[in-house]
Amino acid sequence: MPIAATILLDILIIFAMAKLAGELFERVRQPAVLGEILAGVLIGPYALALIGQPGDGLIAAFHSEEAAREALRIVYDVFAEVGIIVLLFFVGLETRIEDLLSVGRRAAVVAVLGIVLPFVFGYLLTASIGYSGLSAVFVGTALVATSVGITARVLSDLGVLQRPEARIILGAAVVDDILAMILLAIVTGIGGGEVSWGQISLVIVEAIAFTAFVALVGARVIRRYDAHLDALHLQNGPFVVAMVVCLGLSALAGYVGLAAIIGAFLAGMVFSEARQRDSLIAQTRAVAELLVPFFFVVTGAQVDPRLFLDWRIVGLALAVTVLAIAGKLIGCSIGAWGLGKRSVAVVGVGMVPRGEVGVIVATLGLTLGALSRELFSVVIMMSVLTTLIVPPVLHWIYRGTARSTSTTPQSPHL
Amino acid sequence: MPIAATILLDILIIFAMAKLAGELFERVRQPAVLGEILAGVLIGPYALALIGQPGDGLIAAFHSEEAAREALRIVYDVFAEVGIIVLLFFVGLETRIEDLLSVGRRAAVVAVLGIVLPFVFGYLLTASIGYSGLSAVFVGTALVATSVGITARVLSDLGVLQRPEARIILGAAVVDDILAMILLAIVTGIGGGEVSWGQISLVIVEAIAFTAFVALVGARVIRRYDAHLDALHLQNGPFVVAMVVCLGLSALAGYVGLAAIIGAFLAGMVFSEARQRDSLIAQTRAVAELLVPFFFVVTGAQVDPRLFLDWRIVGLALAVTVLAIAGKLIGCSIGAWGLGKRSVAVVGVGMVPRGEVGVIVATLGLTLGALSRELFSVVIMMSVLTTLIVPPVLHWIYRGTARSTSTTPQSPHL
Repeated sequence: MPIAATILLDILIIFAMAKLAGELFERVRQPAVLGEILAGVLIGPYALALIGQPGDGLIAAFHSEEAAREALRIVYDVFAEVGIIVLLFFVGLETRIEDLLSVGRRAAVVAVLGIVLPFVFGYLLTASIGYSGLSAVFVGTALVATSVGITARVLSDLGVLQRPEARIILGAAVVDDILAMILLAIVTGIGGGEVSWGQISLVIVEAIAFTAFVALVGARVIRRYDAHLDALHLQNGPFVVAMVVCLGLSALAGYVGLAAIIGAFLAGMVFSEARQRDSLIAQTRAVAELLVPFFFVVTGAQVDPRLFLDWRIVGLALAVTVLAIAGKLIGCSIGAWGLGKRSVAVVGVGMVPRGEVGVIVATLGLTLGALSRELFSVVIMMSVLTTLIVPPVLHWIYRGTARSTSTTPQSPHL
Repeated sequence: MPIAATILLDILIIFAMAKLAGELFERVRQPAVLGEILAGVLIGPYALALIGQPGDGLIAAFHSEEAAREALRIVYDVFAEVGIIVLLFFVGLETRIEDLLSVGRRAAVVAVLGIVLPFVFGYLLTASIGYSGLSAVFVGTALVATSVGITARVLSDLGVLQRPEARIILGAAVVDDILAMILLAIVTGIGGGEVSWGQISLVIVEAIAFTAFVALVGARVIRRYDAHLDALHLQNGPFVVAMVVCLGLSALAGYVGLAAIIGAFLAGMVFSEARQRDSLIAQTRAVAELLVPFFFVVTGAQVDPRLFLDWRIVGLALAVTVLAIAGKLIGCSIGAWGLGKRSVAVVGVGMVPRGEVGVIVATLGLTLGALSRELFSVVIMMSVLTTLIVPPVLHWIYRGTARSTSTTPQSPHL
């Protein structure tokens, strides 16, 4: 029952290093989230390996060092997942459903264009340099899905979640995730040698029904019954119910084939309609402060910096990264056209990060034998680069204009 | 990187069942924490087994169902440990060091008397019915250490943490933990066939030095530098630093041989001196709302209700439980004598729960071969019973007088 002392030490290291790096980056006017990711690279298994080393007790419990390491990895992955769920719930709380619906058509266009171009670019490049069609399809798919967590974090840090371009990005992220999920189901079917169109249709219907049901019915229910939340005998009843719904919709999203964070975002959006919204935001912010860094550190820890030493891979990765950026930038900018120069730029840049979604596709492709280890590394590197590049660029675009959400008045946020 | 969907579902079940049981218990005027523990028994592996069942993916990752189960157990144990750390940090935040020092001498007397009597009682009973001296020493030791988490939770829920009897219990818990740790080091040495008095002395000195240093120097440092916390560039700088110190002192406490929660309590007490105390309390409360239930559910999940069907074990367990209660009740009441009837009763009852500490000693005794499986079950049952009995009794003692800390005005706390 008492956990190994090394695990508590790891948790301390992850949290403390994330916050220390965040503080240092803020001081030199860089985004804190970038510091957190790089802290993860630094303390991760491929660099200093400060975390994830099982002690003797844990190795004895598993009869194998490898299994003990795997167990630790799962522990930190769970913290990371809960952290990103809390973050997207928080972002959802700050997003009104009507605001999102008002940009719905545009968000859909942004999402579709932002998926088509990167897929085509990735497919053509990979096929043109001699890889198989299957490999090309997987690289194209890895370029498709935006990882909205990073952009959401930056926009939240900058205090601009209420702006139209932020709402378009969040709406597009929901559509993007549904489309990417459909595409992944299809290519996995192809990669596994079988495509059951009936099954794929089922997944599509489930995902769309889930999203529509939660967004539309959920909001109505909460507006009707929010007063009842105060009548609970539990302490902090509204917050407790909100957390139950957040975890519930996250788990449910996973079961219908969507990313868990899409469920968390929808849950947050539903509770943004509740009269207790302000206190929910304050309570969720405290939880997020503790748990969110785990996601970004764990993401960083998966990066092997030695990959950046093999020039053949780096060259190809840079080409793929340029196409990944160009594809989203062009596709999403066209979708956002007419909103004003800065908003178009924000939408284009905000959809660029591939983050953990690219890593997931790469891992799947490697497992199915559709990607060589070389192409796998290329996709991983593309995911890292598109993720690292976005926070500073968004900060730069908003330089001088974004209001700070910091609680410290003297904080020099840009 | 994305965790198994079953893990997210488990987390949902643990949280939702804990809060549901808490709500139901509050409605029938029973302590929420009792509901959380019983929810754990219900969904735990020995009853409905709703949680902790690894999916196929996890079993494949570990090449063994047993190892996958162990990994899940560790995941939930870590959540439980972080939860109880946050709770004791919260309790520490509501405790002023000078208040604790003002009851210091009395707390020490309560702790010492509350250790001697249970040990003697447990030893004599076990030896008198024919068990070996080593077994008797282990049963005695299992009766010694109070698990202050449960009492702290109940006193916090009742809003009486500021009263003298609560401060005496918290002070006594620190002393109690140091003494129990020393005793455990000695009996483990005996059980393992070797006692190095030099090593034991070192542990003692470390533990006392750690406690004194943190309590005295920490408070001075925070009073001097608390304004600097607001000058950090990080959002919510004071809360972030408090969490780092909380996790740091918890880990450090583990390394000097104390319970991690003693470190967390000391960290909270240090930050209770900071000018940002009120906002720290609000933020910690939100985090506690989410994480604390994991501790009580996981504690409950370790109870095998079938143990209560073997009448031979139950009979012995009841006898040991009566002595465990009588030992603390008599010893601690003598220590608290003269404080007024109700305060004496609260101190006596509040020190009764053995909780996870009894379970730890039992597991250790079983591992060393000092306890038979029968005596092991007896100690486990004693830990459960002393833990279950205390919340309702404390609520009963405070009936009609304790103010509610609930945020909902119509909440019918007793």
